[in-house]
Amino acid sequence: MGDPTGVGPEVIVGAWHAAAAHHAARLVVLGRAGVLRRAVSLLNSQIQVVDVAAPEEIQSGVDILPCISCGNAAADRAPPAAVDARGGQAAYDALLLATELALSQRLDGVVTAPLNKTALRAAGHVYPGHTELLTDLCGAGQTAMMLYLNDRSVVHGRVGLGVVHVTLHMALRDIFQQLNTDAIRAKIELADTVIQSFLDDLGESRRPRLAVCALNPHAGETGLFGDEEQRIISPAVRSAEEDGLNVQGPFPTDTLMMRAAKGEFDAVVAMYHDQGHIALKLLGLHRAVNITLGLPIVRTSVAHGTAFDLAWQGRAETAGMLEAIRVAAQLARHRGRSPVVKNHAPSVPIQRSECAAEPS
Amino acid sequence: MGDPTGVGPEVIVGAWHAAAAHHAARLVVLGRAGVLRRAVSLLNSQIQVVDVAAPEEIQSGVDILPCISCGNAAADRAPPAAVDARGGQAAYDALLLATELALSQRLDGVVTAPLNKTALRAAGHVYPGHTELLTDLCGAGQTAMMLYLNDRSVVHGRVGLGVVHVTLHMALRDIFQQLNTDAIRAKIELADTVIQSFLDDLGESRRPRLAVCALNPHAGETGLFGDEEQRIISPAVRSAEEDGLNVQGPFPTDTLMMRAAKGEFDAVVAMYHDQGHIALKLLGLHRAVNITLGLPIVRTSVAHGTAFDLAWQGRAETAGMLEAIRVAAQLARHRGRSPVVKNHAPSVPIQRSECAAEPS
Repeated sequence: MGDPTGVGPEVIVGAWHAAAAHHAARLVVLGRAGVLRRAVSLLNSQIQVVDVAAPEEIQSGVDILPCISCGNAAADRAPPAAVDARGGQAAYDALLLATELALSQRLDGVVTAPLNKTALRAAGHVYPGHTELLTDLCGAGQTAMMLYLNDRSVVHGRVGLGVVHVTLHMALRDIFQQLNTDAIRAKIELADTVIQSFLDDLGESRRPRLAVCALNPHAGETGLFGDEEQRIISPAVRSAEEDGLNVQGPFPTDTLMMRAAKGEFDAVVAMYHDQGHIALKLLGLHRAVNITLGLPIVRTSVAHGTAFDLAWQGRAETAGMLEAIRVAAQLARHRGRSPVVKNHAPSVPIQRSECAAEPS
Repeated sequence: MGDPTGVGPEVIVGAWHAAAAHHAARLVVLGRAGVLRRAVSLLNSQIQVVDVAAPEEIQSGVDILPCISCGNAAADRAPPAAVDARGGQAAYDALLLATELALSQRLDGVVTAPLNKTALRAAGHVYPGHTELLTDLCGAGQTAMMLYLNDRSVVHGRVGLGVVHVTLHMALRDIFQQLNTDAIRAKIELADTVIQSFLDDLGESRRPRLAVCALNPHAGETGLFGDEEQRIISPAVRSAEEDGLNVQGPFPTDTLMMRAAKGEFDAVVAMYHDQGHIALKLLGLHRAVNITLGLPIVRTSVAHGTAFDLAWQGRAETAGMLEAIRVAAQLARHRGRSPVVKNHAPSVPIQRSECAAEPS
C-alpha cells in the first residue's frame, strides 16, 4: 500500500478498476483496509474491500479488493498529504510483510506504492531509498534500480526501454569512488537478464541490445574532459562483450538517450541517479515502472513519489500502477518457468530490521 | 558555414528555402562558395550562390544565397563526413570573420553551423567548445551556453524553455571546484536577461520565471546526499530573489525538467553539461537552438553537431537552422532597440588568436 498519506491508496484503487490488472494476476493489497475504503469513497467507486488472512485465499476482480491487514491502527489516523511517522511506519510494515510472503513463495511478486523517505526516517527506518531497503530486507548482494518504460508513443523499441543505475542515492561528489569496472559490469548483466526475459516472452530469439552511458560530457572527448570512460567504463563494456553480451558504449549520454528512445537499444546503463532519471521521467514518468534487479523476489513499483501536491484529491494518474502490476506479473511468470532463478530465495527466515531513529 | 565536411552546408541550403528565414533577416553566408554550390546540387535546389564582398551588399531570398568567401581553397577539398584539419580551419576562419564583422556592427548577429572539435584541434585551435572559442574571440567575461527550445508540441510555455549551464565542457569530477554562488548567480542573471527580451517582444509585461537545478539526486534529500544545495546553490537563488528576480530552487532536476517542459518555468539553470543537455536534446534536439549569453554580439547555433553519420546525404533536418536564424534575428532586433547593450562591443580590433597545435 505504501504510505497511506500519499497517492498510493488512490492509485491502487484506480488501477483495480482495469480488467487488465486482473488478467495479469490475482491481486491482494497488504496494508490498512480502512485506508483503502477511504480511497474507494474518494473515487466514488463501488469496489468492495474485503479482509483476507492469507494470500492463498485471494479472490480478486474489478469489484473486489482483498486486503491482508498489517501494521497498526495508528496508520489510519495519519492525515492526508503530509509527512507523518505513522505513514512511514505503515509503508515499512507493508513492505516487510510483502517481502516475507514473497521470500517464502506465498506471493509470486510484489508491487509497491510510493513511500516517503522523510516519513520513513521519522518512523526510525533510515534508508536512502526503497531499493536499498529491499536489498537489506532480502539480504541480497548486487542489486540495481531499473526504470522501465514501455509506452509506444515515446519509446519505439519492441520491449520498451530500461535504464539501470550503477550508483543511486548518494551525493554526486561520492559517485567517483563507487564507480568501478566490476560494478558497471554487474549492472550490465542485470540489465541483460531482465530484458532477455522480456524478449523471451515476446518469442524474440535475439539478445538484448544494451548501451552504456559515459560519465563525462561528450564521453570525455577522448580524454580531454575526464578519463573514466577509458579507465573504468570501456573495460566493463569490453569484458561483457567478450562474454557474448550485445553491449556498446560508453556513449555521450545526451544523444544516447535519444537513440535509445528511438528504439536503437533495449536498455541503457547509467552511471548515476539523475543521468537516468532526467531522461526516463521526461519520457514518461506516469507510465514508467521501477524494477529492482538482483533481488531473490520479483519487485516493481510506480516511478513517481507520494505526490503530496495532489494526494487524496482523486486526481492521481493510475497508468503507472497498472503498468507496474503488468510488469511484475510478467516477471513472475517468467521466473516461474525458470527454476534456477527461483532458487535464489534464501531458506532462512527474514530478520526484522532494527534501525535507530535519526533526528535529522 | 561551420565545418564543410559536416551537415552545415546542407542545413544552410535547406533552411534557405524557407521564406520565414528571409522574413526574419537579410542573410549572408561566410564560408566557401564552392562548398555551398555542392550542397545546392546535393539537394537538387535551384538556389543561386553569389559572391559578395561586404555585408552591406546583401540581397538575399529563397532563390539567392550571397556568400562572403573566407579561409582558403584547401577547405573545398576536405572530404565529406570525415574529421579533417582543413574542415576545422574553415570553420574557424568563418567564425573569426563573423565575429569581427559583428563586433564592428557590420552584421547584427551570427548564426553558426556545427564545427567538429577534433577537426578544430587538428587545425591547431584548441578549445573545449564553440562557446569557449567565442568567449575568447570576443574577449568576453561571464558567458554561458543556453539551449533554447520553442516547440509547442513538447514545451508548453509561451516563450519556450531555455536551459543555461553553469559549468560546461569539463570532466564531471572537475565541476565541484567550478561551482560557486557567484557563478550560479551570474548565470541566473544571464537567463533572466535573455528571457526578458523574449517576453518584451511578445508584449508580456511579466518577469521571467526561473528555476535552478539541484546538483545531487532528490536535491540532496535535506543534506543526506550532499550539501551543495544548502551551501552554494540556495544562497545564489536567495540573492537573486532579493534583487527582484523571479527565481526558485534548487529543485531535484529529474522532476524540474518535467515541470519546466509543461510551462511552469521559462528557463532552468543547470549545474553541468549533461544535466541540461539530456533534458533538452530529448525534448527536441532538432529544433533546439544554442544561444551564447553574455557576449557583446548576438550568436545562435543549431544544437546538433556535424553528424558525420548522415552528412552529405541530403537527409539532415533543417528545422534547427531555421529556428537558430529566427532567434538570432529576434535577439538582434531587441538589441537594436536597447543601446546600452550595443555599447558592450569593444572598440579595439579583434586579436587573431594564435593557438599552438596539440598533437592529441
